[in-house]
Amino acid sequence: MSAEVPHRPSQSLESRLLRRLLSHLGNPPIEIVLNWTGERLAPQGRSPIGCLRIADRRTLLSIMGDPQVRIGDAYSAGRVNIDGDLVLLMRSLYGSTSARDGSRSIWRHLTPWHRRPRRNTLVGSRSNIHRHYDIGNDFYALWLGETMIYTCAYYPSEESTLDQAQTAKMDHICRKLRIRAGESVIDAGCGWGGLALHMASRYGARVRAFSISREQIDYARQRARVQGLDGRVEFIEDDYRNISGKHDAFVSVGMLEHVGVENYAVFGHVVRRLLTAEGRGLIHSIGRNHPEPTHPWIEQRIFPGAYLPSLAEMMHVFETTGLSVLDVENIRLHYARTLRHWIERYEAAADRVRAMFDETFVRMWRLYLAGSAAAFEVGQLQLFHVLFTTRENNNIPFNRQYMYAADVL
Amino acid sequence: MSAEVPHRPSQSLESRLLRRLLSHLGNPPIEIVLNWTGERLAPQGRSPIGCLRIADRRTLLSIMGDPQVRIGDAYSAGRVNIDGDLVLLMRSLYGSTSARDGSRSIWRHLTPWHRRPRRNTLVGSRSNIHRHYDIGNDFYALWLGETMIYTCAYYPSEESTLDQAQTAKMDHICRKLRIRAGESVIDAGCGWGGLALHMASRYGARVRAFSISREQIDYARQRARVQGLDGRVEFIEDDYRNISGKHDAFVSVGMLEHVGVENYAVFGHVVRRLLTAEGRGLIHSIGRNHPEPTHPWIEQRIFPGAYLPSLAEMMHVFETTGLSVLDVENIRLHYARTLRHWIERYEAAADRVRAMFDETFVRMWRLYLAGSAAAFEVGQLQLFHVLFTTRENNNIPFNRQYMYAADVL
Repeated sequence: MSAEVPHRPSQSLESRLLRRLLSHLGNPPIEIVLNWTGERLAPQGRSPIGCLRIADRRTLLSIMGDPQVRIGDAYSAGRVNIDGDLVLLMRSLYGSTSARDGSRSIWRHLTPWHRRPRRNTLVGSRSNIHRHYDIGNDFYALWLGETMIYTCAYYPSEESTLDQAQTAKMDHICRKLRIRAGESVIDAGCGWGGLALHMASRYGARVRAFSISREQIDYARQRARVQGLDGRVEFIEDDYRNISGKHDAFVSVGMLEHVGVENYAVFGHVVRRLLTAEGRGLIHSIGRNHPEPTHPWIEQRIFPGAYLPSLAEMMHVFETTGLSVLDVENIRLHYARTLRHWIERYEAAADRVRAMFDETFVRMWRLYLAGSAAAFEVGQLQLFHVLFTTRENNNIPFNRQYMYAADVL
Repeated sequence: MSAEVPHRPSQSLESRLLRRLLSHLGNPPIEIVLNWTGERLAPQGRSPIGCLRIADRRTLLSIMGDPQVRIGDAYSAGRVNIDGDLVLLMRSLYGSTSARDGSRSIWRHLTPWHRRPRRNTLVGSRSNIHRHYDIGNDFYALWLGETMIYTCAYYPSEESTLDQAQTAKMDHICRKLRIRAGESVIDAGCGWGGLALHMASRYGARVRAFSISREQIDYARQRARVQGLDGRVEFIEDDYRNISGKHDAFVSVGMLEHVGVENYAVFGHVVRRLLTAEGRGLIHSIGRNHPEPTHPWIEQRIFPGAYLPSLAEMMHVFETTGLSVLDVENIRLHYARTLRHWIERYEAAADRVRAMFDETFVRMWRLYLAGSAAAFEVGQLQLFHVLFTTRENNNIPFNRQYMYAADVL
């Protein structure tokens, strides 16, 4: 059989390579412009929702060598620019890849996965945490709101503000844990202290709160003094592995992401050891529908050592340690909304961020926040609350209405 | 260093063997009586809560050879008798073993695990299900109550009756799934049809309900005709693997225990294929805090092919298939109460069970029901509701209050 060679319009080598890359990405509805040739690559059979402009040939060739990391770097450096809504554009990218392959990111087909996240040993964790959380309390204060809480909020209604939703999240957690006055609570990975202070001031708990970020601990201690809570809340700069004693409740919000899946069993044993016979615990963590490596740009540029587990992986914390899972809630869409609120504040403060750092930093964090919002909106990321207790505890409510009773507070 | 040999009272060989067995079991607070010697072995350092009488030497030697299976068989045959509350005694046995080893049954240390549960192929499943569920609708009707539902109920209050709690369970499931009038629902493993009929009559759903138990399907069809619901509920004698079409919701109550962990990914793919883009699903299953083989007496005598998964294992259903877990609820204590209610009815009907079968059957099922109640009461078994949807569905409630709103019905 003979085949006619179809007529092809003349195209640069770069544009043919790009076409191939786009095809691998599931042909997202994004137009690509090569600034140095003026070529425009429209999406095949779809109208574009945005435009990605590549500044020069060198940038393109760099991206082709390691797209996962270098697209992000090129965007940060201003050598890739984007017209259109960044979140929407990232959504379309996630959507295109997930439509082609229901359970796996397409990225792994482009670049073999050989990068290992940084280890979360006692020393490694300190370094990893330092690199993200110690870049400046003033920076985070620009966009996290009054509560200074850097984890998924919980929106009572569509009209709720970020601060209201962060407060509602803390109450949701305290209700789930049934925190009572006088109880001893461990907060592992306490951030800037918002939850620990809330548990003490609103629920009367005695809290020992841990972080290995020095900046966070300093900030949290200052807040405790200002609020007159330093007698009830102790902020301790130490690793979760060094927590001791027996306590009524354990809570960890947004720390599991930094524990590393290889340490989940150890983490679970620590938690079990800390709980009294009727102790309860809650772990709040970003997760996934299925195991998948951390995006290498995120792991290298934003969250060294981070890993976001599937529920099956999270269960390593519990299933080797005599803990019993009572309740799992997925509040994914709340993180999408939280991120939209952060992005709004971040963009409003972009000039001050630029003054603190530089334009590259502004763009790098813009991409990280927009990519995260998109990932939650399309279901690439999930947010799990896992409530648990000791295996032997029978003093547990028969249903979950207590979490929703209007008169709890 | 020389050691004095302590004085030992004279004991039969059997009693010394038994002492060793008891020590392996964590020395539960159970007195053992050897009927043929009159010897009594009191628990060490604890007062007994019950007494286990072994009829003859041959029975003891048989038990020592394979305690996991043969204690149960000897009890069924009346060669082992128990004085005291059977559930309490089984609890103490579970409690003793779990106190020694927080995460593993001690049984595995006594007998190497070499028995494989019967395979759940299309043919194997039919045989396995037939052996349990087809032993007689009249038999199950003696103790399951009006609803003829043979799965964990959900008690609105301590005073709720079994029938009220089974109805509340069905409503709890329908609320979680947000079943609306006119929606198409698949019920996989429908038992005697209780839930399918309830979804049609109370929520206006169109239901296709599947079981591979012929007795169950016959019974369910008869109920549908009597209730005038045979136009809205179709009962089909077929395997879950053969279900077709696109549906708004999928529910499976008490079937996963018979699917076999090796088939979870296939099961998940079937479920995903059956759901529309905004489809929801719920799986209700007995589970465990950690992976553990089915007790061999249960697998051999009661539930051939059964396997009770940990949550991590259950996640195999979802994590390979583009499904997203929204909510997990553990209602373990409800199953303990359900079993207590079944036991009460079962014992009240014991004479009729004896007339249908024989004394060995009466005792075998008594042991199975009591052992199950004990296992839920001490946390050896769990009961999980897993609510899920398609990965891409964003039409999901922001919180779970809708499950508890008083005005839903």
